Amino acid sequence: MWIRNAWYVAAWTHEIEPGRIHARTVIDQPLAIYRTADGAIVALEDRCPHRFAPLSLGRLEGDALRCMYHGLKFAPDGTCIEIPGQKLIPQSACVRRYPLEIVGSWIWVWMGEADKADPKAIPPSLALDDPAWRLQASQLDYDAHYLLIDDNLLDLSHLSFTHEKTLGLDMPQWADERPRSQPLDRGLRFQRWLRNHPPRGFMKKLGERLDVWNSYDFLFPGIFLQRTSFYPAGTAERSGGKAPAGEPLFHRIDEQAVTPVGSRASRYFYAVGTRAKDIDADKLGRLFDVTTTAFYEDKRIIEAQQKLIDLEPGRAMLPTSLDAGPTQFRKLVEAMAVAG
Amino acid sequence: MWIRNAWYVAAWTHEIEPGRIHARTVIDQPLAIYRTADGAIVALEDRCPHRFAPLSLGRLEGDALRCMYHGLKFAPDGTCIEIPGQKLIPQSACVRRYPLEIVGSWIWVWMGEADKADPKAIPPSLALDDPAWRLQASQLDYDAHYLLIDDNLLDLSHLSFTHEKTLGLDMPQWADERPRSQPLDRGLRFQRWLRNHPPRGFMKKLGERLDVWNSYDFLFPGIFLQRTSFYPAGTAERSGGKAPAGEPLFHRIDEQAVTPVGSRASRYFYAVGTRAKDIDADKLGRLFDVTTTAFYEDKRIIEAQQKLIDLEPGRAMLPTSLDAGPTQFRKLVEAMAVAG
Amino acid sequence: MWIRNAWYVAAWTHEIEPGRIHARTVIDQPLAIYRTADGAIVALEDRCPHRFAPLSLGRLEGDALRCMYHGLKFAPDGTCIEIPGQKLIPQSACVRRYPLEIVGSWIWVWMGEADKADPKAIPPSLALDDPAWRLQASQLDYDAHYLLIDDNLLDLSHLSFTHEKTLGLDMPQWADERPRSQPLDRGLRFQRWLRNHPPRGFMKKLGERLDVWNSYDFLFPGIFLQRTSFYPAGTAERSGGKAPAGEPLFHRIDEQAVTPVGSRASRYFYAVGTRAKDIDADKLGRLFDVTTTAFYEDKRIIEAQQKLIDLEPGRAMLPTSLDAGPTQFRKLVEAMAVAG
Repeated sequence: MWIRNAWYVAAWTHEIEPGRIHARTVIDQPLAIYRTADGAIVALEDRCPHRFAPLSLGRLEGDALRCMYHGLKFAPDGTCIEIPGQKLIPQSACVRRYPLEIVGSWIWVWMGEADKADPKAIPPSLALDDPAWRLQASQLDYDAHYLLIDDNLLDLSHLSFTHEKTLGLDMPQWADERPRSQPLDRGLRFQRWLRNHPPRGFMKKLGERLDVWNSYDFLFPGIFLQRTSFYPAGTAERSGGKAPAGEPLFHRIDEQAVTPVGSRASRYFYAVGTRAKDIDADKLGRLFDVTTTAFYEDKRIIEAQQKLIDLEPGRAMLPTSLDAGPTQFRKLVEAMAVAG
Repeated sequence: MWIRNAWYVAAWTHEIEPGRIHARTVIDQPLAIYRTADGAIVALEDRCPHRFAPLSLGRLEGDALRCMYHGLKFAPDGTCIEIPGQKLIPQSACVRRYPLEIVGSWIWVWMGEADKADPKAIPPSLALDDPAWRLQASQLDYDAHYLLIDDNLLDLSHLSFTHEKTLGLDMPQWADERPRSQPLDRGLRFQRWLRNHPPRGFMKKLGERLDVWNSYDFLFPGIFLQRTSFYPAGTAERSGGKAPAGEPLFHRIDEQAVTPVGSRASRYFYAVGTRAKDIDADKLGRLFDVTTTAFYEDKRIIEAQQKLIDLEPGRAMLPTSLDAGPTQFRKLVEAMAVAG
Repeated sequence: MWIRNAWYVAAWTHEIEPGRIHARTVIDQPLAIYRTADGAIVALEDRCPHRFAPLSLGRLEGDALRCMYHGLKFAPDGTCIEIPGQKLIPQSACVRRYPLEIVGSWIWVWMGEADKADPKAIPPSLALDDPAWRLQASQLDYDAHYLLIDDNLLDLSHLSFTHEKTLGLDMPQWADERPRSQPLDRGLRFQRWLRNHPPRGFMKKLGERLDVWNSYDFLFPGIFLQRTSFYPAGTAERSGGKAPAGEPLFHRIDEQAVTPVGSRASRYFYAVGTRAKDIDADKLGRLFDVTTTAFYEDKRIIEAQQKLIDLEPGRAMLPTSLDAGPTQFRKLVEAMAVAG
């Protein structure tokens, strides 16, 4: 059921404190994540092969993990290096080590066959401490299947409704202006100009009307990398409807990752920010709070949606012209599942 | 599994406030119940056909409901009247409107085929604000199948035991005097004289001994409409054991409705009262409190019973002579299920 | 799935107060346990045969139990002696009475065919008020299958790890010195000498080095009867590695019983103590507290283990040389299951 040959965001790097073993679950697989002495991050299967006690309840001994049920000890590559009371350590005495990469501030784990793990397939994302940007980040948990959250991010027309009182007033009528989409490897790119948009709040100083270039990539399993750039009115026209060339007046960034935890559990990582010069820490804090409030609006509606889906599994949904993004992406996920 | 072609009590009318959308569930079907501008009450399927978000998390716009996920809008008859971003609205874009009737203070919904909904099949019940009566009402939720609650109401011999310390002392030995029952359309009528009954509390002033005429109709799915009339001792004899003709000294009324919510969830609506002249508001409050306490005694035992039934599904119960009412009613329900 | 023809510990005798009916569950069977007027303890099936209300919500009438749903009354032998409203009591109107024995302070119930219940098969255990001993007792509940708790008790090598900070420092390296085991009827006996052990705390006064004789019987379903005797260093040598003959310097006793409640629920009864002369009440209190803390360490790891087992049922565990005890005992349980 799960697509194993894929990179998943397991945590923010700042979540993994030195000297502690952190339990995380990705596609129903338990992970014990910790730092070795040199600060590197390791993800091992969080289940001792002996009696299935979690290693995350164990002890960090140098760079190794000891299970604190009967004392088996594992090197950071997952091989067992000690079984109390016996000399011989069978080759099968190991836990799986998951290929792990850090890109920006996300810890990515590869859940499938190790020899297929290609770090170059991981999309770029910002480090939260990148000095060119000012970013704030958090995460929240959903009692819902990750594809329902993906659907939400693949059709931003919901902004005008679900977030009417939070993001909606600052946003154009997303439902009426459709983005152009193009296929990416394991994802889709959405781009659009929103023309002659009246700015609100602290953006009013930028001009009476602005053209807004919105572009986001959406990649399996639920990576949302969005840039929203504000230009003087008329820029869209001058760009011939294509991507603008010059520096924007204001540049907002949104980076999010949906991670499937189980069939009805997901974790949603998100960062919001701007160029460092666009905003101060106080304004960023307000932007972050509004964004967080909006994400709880999504959570409320999506968890309710999940319950109604589960009440009558298999009941068909009504297709509308809003669904192009979600529909294309679901096809892509189905193709990945078939490919294995 | 559920009997759909039937009227069910969804709520008290006073629960449905103007300007709000209320979520209720009847036989596993989610309902969004609200008032239109003229005060009329509407029950729509609480599930947008587009993505299955609940309309009860949506917005009331005049008499219409807008789903606040992607903005589909529905008229009070359930037809979709707006899909943001598209002109064409397919005929299948609608939610079910449930036939709804108000009788007394209960909101009845018809869960089956609309053309079979006959308002005349709804039994009469009092309005809580009827000036001839003084009534107090509430509801409570059970973690149990509705038929277990029905069984309880169909065999009042449990009053002497379950309610020994609440209703029992005010009641005759219900276990020993059996009512006569007669079939009704979709229910049963139970009637009996309890002779020479010693009155308690504020009824002592009515006489040293009273004859009590107890009559109740019990109708699918769990409608309990009871009249208990107190007469001077000897009235039963003079009436030849039949229904009394004259005005009683005191007249208690109990109206209850059991609504199946899910297979292990039910809602129990109840009103207790007397003629307005029988009792003042303070005494009614005490009567109501005792009744409520008694209903929690039922709830405790029935929820425990449900757990023991679920521990060994299919285990046979021991029939006794007390079971005539429950047994007849279960047969009636089975016949309704077969009839469809 | 359950082994019925066996004795199980249902409760401590002091839990069963006169005048109350106590609900307990053993191998998914509900029990109503109470004392008759003469103080004897009775265990009846906690389910009225009429409507499956629990008798533990009923009323004690002399030595009989009355169901407080419709009033059926049961003698302490389980036969029904009253059905309100009818004269004839069918033979099938009874609840099961479970054979029950008290040994020491444990109430044992036989869950299988009554004619196979042999009280002599119950292992001896101490009464908590035995004047020769000073004992303190309690119980705790696990969300885990009882055999996982048994595994824990059948391989004390976990003491060095799970209880490193509680019992571990007071204990020798249990993982490195293996006990000898021998089969018992429905169990195993484990015995070992731990030589030249440095005493800690209040045992320091007994000598600089001690030899420790540890012996425990482990019996179905999870009865753990342990004696740990401390002798002057050299005693093991003089005993030829066999059981010591003389009185020890100090004698610790641990008696525990694991009772399966359901497939993911168990109750763990435990008593810890010494000879009365070994310790005062205050020191016993501290010994008890440390032991309790250790048992919560077990609970934490075993409940986590249960979850990881349930995540992938059927996944094979890695055998090690530590597993001799658990493996032998599981074979014994399988043989009992086959024997029926």
